Amino acid sequence: MPATNHQFRLAARPVGLPKRSDFNYTEEPVRDPGAGEILVKILYVSLDPAMRGWMNEGKSYVPPVGIGEVMRAGAVGRVIASQNPGFAVGDHVVGMFGMQEYALSDGKGITKIDPRLAPLPVFLGTLGMPGMTAYFGLLEVGALKEGDTVVVSGAAGAVGMPVGQIAKIKGARAVGLAGSPEKCEYAVKELGFDACINYKTEDVKAALRQHCPNGINVYFDNVGGEILDAALAQLARGARVVICGAISQYNSTSGVKGPQNYLSLLVNSARMEGFVVFNYASRYAEALREMAGWRAAGKLKSREDVVAGLETFPETLLKLFTGENFGKLVLKVADA
Amino acid sequence: MPATNHQFRLAARPVGLPKRSDFNYTEEPVRDPGAGEILVKILYVSLDPAMRGWMNEGKSYVPPVGIGEVMRAGAVGRVIASQNPGFAVGDHVVGMFGMQEYALSDGKGITKIDPRLAPLPVFLGTLGMPGMTAYFGLLEVGALKEGDTVVVSGAAGAVGMPVGQIAKIKGARAVGLAGSPEKCEYAVKELGFDACINYKTEDVKAALRQHCPNGINVYFDNVGGEILDAALAQLARGARVVICGAISQYNSTSGVKGPQNYLSLLVNSARMEGFVVFNYASRYAEALREMAGWRAAGKLKSREDVVAGLETFPETLLKLFTGENFGKLVLKVADA
Repeated sequence: MPATNHQFRLAARPVGLPKRSDFNYTEEPVRDPGAGEILVKILYVSLDPAMRGWMNEGKSYVPPVGIGEVMRAGAVGRVIASQNPGFAVGDHVVGMFGMQEYALSDGKGITKIDPRLAPLPVFLGTLGMPGMTAYFGLLEVGALKEGDTVVVSGAAGAVGMPVGQIAKIKGARAVGLAGSPEKCEYAVKELGFDACINYKTEDVKAALRQHCPNGINVYFDNVGGEILDAALAQLARGARVVICGAISQYNSTSGVKGPQNYLSLLVNSARMEGFVVFNYASRYAEALREMAGWRAAGKLKSREDVVAGLETFPETLLKLFTGENFGKLVLKVADA
Repeated sequence: MPATNHQFRLAARPVGLPKRSDFNYTEEPVRDPGAGEILVKILYVSLDPAMRGWMNEGKSYVPPVGIGEVMRAGAVGRVIASQNPGFAVGDHVVGMFGMQEYALSDGKGITKIDPRLAPLPVFLGTLGMPGMTAYFGLLEVGALKEGDTVVVSGAAGAVGMPVGQIAKIKGARAVGLAGSPEKCEYAVKELGFDACINYKTEDVKAALRQHCPNGINVYFDNVGGEILDAALAQLARGARVVICGAISQYNSTSGVKGPQNYLSLLVNSARMEGFVVFNYASRYAEALREMAGWRAAGKLKSREDVVAGLETFPETLLKLFTGENFGKLVLKVADA
């Protein structure tokens, strides 16, 4: 049995970008699992834009992380002790284990995974919540149809990568938006996007006009801000705008920028719809089977950005907000 | 045969509020109808917020009114000469006849109406496009369900009046927003709204919280701006925001104010959808029958704000944007 567990606990509600002093790095003894519990050694922790919202006070789709609580985080780990008949020592599991080295769990909301299917970080990306988010966001909320033109922001991120590839699998055109030539090249050459716009160097409105001459049928938005407005300006009639996130706005200290071009919804009889992937929990298994099949067939590639060391969490998280990370961002906590 | 026709033609694209110098008041001889044509004497012309958009250059759901063209407007009139077998002299008709005293038409897009059913201005309001807008916007775009809480802005306007009443007919709660105590009292006492908030004197966010304790299921927006943001802040899970108009923004010279609270769509898995009533043209007859039935049964009341004199058009139009008008605004052009 390991002796100590290290954890990041929320110390203060961040103003603007989160910083190290918004967290306490704490140490406590590891407790043996009680009746019905498992003890999980965490191997990889997921870093997600949504974490920023969980740090804020106020009503949302989940309660905020309380001050003093272990920071909420998805993670993959290995069961190292079990008093729960549903889990055996050695099982690999994924769940909301938090930003720490060890987690106790009663097994609720925990899923066993097969590590032969893919490298473990993939279960936090394409075969995890971001993959489910892409799948249900594009197919259900976005109501994707064959022949549609799909535009996705954050195209080299955890959700954007599968969005573009699922669009292609379903017979649509996929146009990405990303923040570097390397990301754009990856989206087109590796992932099979039809085009990818570098929003840092190109005129986004003009590029969207060029790549979507008949308008955008589905805009899958991960970023908000100016890019959302540019996409709204290029909607096709009956378009669906999927509001998955707004990473450009999460750290704003001057309020959220609302989409000035929202009246494009009116003139194009279009809709803008938000969702939370948990709405589709009852269908994860079905979607995962399909996603794993595509992955096995080489149609659903992914890239993971693995940073070593739980203790780097506050700084590594910022890679999401600066656009520095490339692929699904995870922290490696332990080797096995 | 009348000798002359007076018309308002667009002279310049307005900047901000339209003014008299943006139009030319012209006179031309009335021409006899040619083969297949009818000549209509216009009795009432409709003044609608959408007109402001039609005066702007740029892509929209209809082409802009061209400089020098007769200002586009819906109107009710009487056929005074006919070379079209579908129409007889004396028929009352409704159509996009324009801001003028007489109109020639080939009969396309023109509907005969029965003046015994309602006073003529009502065919430009509750039994006209605004009524159709309310009907399809609420029932189709808003996907109204029994027990829903519906909030509608512009509650004492041409679209808002039927929205609230149809909500009540369908077993929903109706909460209005309007700009004077008289309008609010009318909405509640005459039209049967459950509540009406005076947005000029009340704290709209607090009032929405009070009147919609379980959140807003359908917000039918005619105004945009701060009120849209207040409604977004109070959405229920799965809410539908119907974007019908944004009268607070149409004359803005500093750009449209985007809804800052749009991420409420995300956390509430809600949608915001725009529409244009013309999408439902094939179903107008069906909807009109139902609306006329409700009207006959006393369940669908209306109020018309009739201003005399075609020549007052540029100034009377402004009543829409100052909130001065009360009920469906029409210009009376001729007695019969």
